[in-house]
Amino acid sequence: MTVEDEPRVTITSIAREAGVSVPTVSRVVNGRSDVSPATRERVEELLRRYGYRRRASPRREAASLIDLVFNDLDSPWAVEIIRGVEDVAHGALIGTVVSAIHQRSASARQWMRNLQARATDGVILVASDVQSPLHAELRRLNIPTVVIDPAGVPAHDVPTVGAANWTGGLAATEHLISLGHRRIGFIAGPRQLLCSRTRLDGYRAGLEAAGIAVEDELIQQGDFYHESGFACAGRLLELEQPPSAIFASSDQMAFGAYEAVRQRGLRVPDDVSVVGFDDLPEARWASPPLTTVRQPLSEMGTLAARTVLRLARGETIESLRIELATQLVVRDSCAPMPD
Amino acid sequence: MTVEDEPRVTITSIAREAGVSVPTVSRVVNGRSDVSPATRERVEELLRRYGYRRRASPRREAASLIDLVFNDLDSPWAVEIIRGVEDVAHGALIGTVVSAIHQRSASARQWMRNLQARATDGVILVASDVQSPLHAELRRLNIPTVVIDPAGVPAHDVPTVGAANWTGGLAATEHLISLGHRRIGFIAGPRQLLCSRTRLDGYRAGLEAAGIAVEDELIQQGDFYHESGFACAGRLLELEQPPSAIFASSDQMAFGAYEAVRQRGLRVPDDVSVVGFDDLPEARWASPPLTTVRQPLSEMGTLAARTVLRLARGETIESLRIELATQLVVRDSCAPMPD
Repeated sequence: MTVEDEPRVTITSIAREAGVSVPTVSRVVNGRSDVSPATRERVEELLRRYGYRRRASPRREAASLIDLVFNDLDSPWAVEIIRGVEDVAHGALIGTVVSAIHQRSASARQWMRNLQARATDGVILVASDVQSPLHAELRRLNIPTVVIDPAGVPAHDVPTVGAANWTGGLAATEHLISLGHRRIGFIAGPRQLLCSRTRLDGYRAGLEAAGIAVEDELIQQGDFYHESGFACAGRLLELEQPPSAIFASSDQMAFGAYEAVRQRGLRVPDDVSVVGFDDLPEARWASPPLTTVRQPLSEMGTLAARTVLRLARGETIESLRIELATQLVVRDSCAPMPD
Repeated sequence: MTVEDEPRVTITSIAREAGVSVPTVSRVVNGRSDVSPATRERVEELLRRYGYRRRASPRREAASLIDLVFNDLDSPWAVEIIRGVEDVAHGALIGTVVSAIHQRSASARQWMRNLQARATDGVILVASDVQSPLHAELRRLNIPTVVIDPAGVPAHDVPTVGAANWTGGLAATEHLISLGHRRIGFIAGPRQLLCSRTRLDGYRAGLEAAGIAVEDELIQQGDFYHESGFACAGRLLELEQPPSAIFASSDQMAFGAYEAVRQRGLRVPDDVSVVGFDDLPEARWASPPLTTVRQPLSEMGTLAARTVLRLARGETIESLRIELATQLVVRDSCAPMPD
């Protein structure tokens, strides 16, 4: 029997041709480890030859688990994303497996082995490098995958969820300009992340729209973490002509800027205005409470979870690039430019 | 064959007596749902009659998953605990399923159903009410369980992991006294949590050791969250004789105190000294950086994970009450009492 005779390839037909049982083919399709290497190879060869896609047989081996994978669990925004994912999964009677792979390939391989030992309904990768072997492996195993805030430009058929970073960068910059600020420092996030580059572009666009020249010395390279915000703000405040306002492209870096201001005997917002980006719960708790661009992290988690569950059910996703709105939240960390 | 003839009850003997297969008994033991109600009842009755404990047959049905259950995923300390648990689990090729049950019994029941559909090697409950039906159900299913920061006094055979809250409360109070403070406000956590009551007792012990009377008006009832810290500190600062220092028994409440101080045109530490409890990453990021009592949250997660995996392997745990040391971390939020 050739593929032309049977237009729709099924697990049953593959099993027949491979001379193995249907559950064995299922185990291979679901990436489980309890199959002999020789059998796995024979079945995978047939799956490839006939272009079998796991989606053709959804729910057959529901794992009742989705995987949420971070590079590191070291940021308070992780818990916001976890909350959004868990909320959807919990409602669907599905468990949320949280992992950190520490951007080390050995750790990613270990995670992959763990995954294959127990199966999953789908995977959500956060701030993941879409060029990594991990992505290729998930694709090879036909495991539904969604990426939140991808590090690079993902393959055209990988769904992604992000926030409107450009618009957020623009809104923060316009807010400071509307308060009369002209020299506005910017603290950038890691260059390799799309979201960092887009926020910077929003800042530039805001300045240009107001006819303010973009000055290189006012743009400092941070990494989203507190310490880099402290160091970058310090450099900005030591400039011959320091800025009267600082837009840090993460809340953590904004808190670092607060401390750089305080250590110079200055005050936020009296002497320096500060805007952040994220709207972590900590932004409300800061003193003064931080004006910041809200990205809806838990909603991003919610949407990613819904999308991955739809993929797991074999549904087709119309919109592969989901971008949620950002919003400027005005609190007490900005003041009008003194005359 | 009676139990006297066969001193060691096994899954095989139960299966024989129930007239079902060994895998069926296994499924009942592991709380899975794919067993008919009648069979489940017959097997459970036999398991109870012979006092079968799942530990007698560890690793037979390893789920390669442990469950970490919070009431809510709304605090930055959750991510610290997740990090500790995930680190151990990842190394053991085991997935960490994170859930929030929102202290609602319907949500807890739903979580339990999910758990029974997929099995688990063990459960870590955080700040859980040990009188809840959830605990009884986990016990009935013989699922290894460890509690981090229990809400009540747990049954004698339930392992718990906590921090040295009393010693931490004492150390913070002694630190403020050593700086010359005599009127020290205290912001307490929720009454129902053991850790709250113990921190308060440490504060009282510190005052008494220094011959300072404990004054009711200086003790305010908070709930560990930011808003309560803000409100309680406000009440303290409005007293006819306000305190010169405030010891908030969580970092979040300490940040609330910062803002109450700032809104009155005062400064930390110049006008009011503030100490927290937790040492969240946010304590370093606060401006000024917060002096606080460090409880090793990620280590608590690590230890809870190691303990639950040992229980899952059928090992006996010698030490059922694990208490990790706390440590005062001195930063910039306290100043000597002005003369």
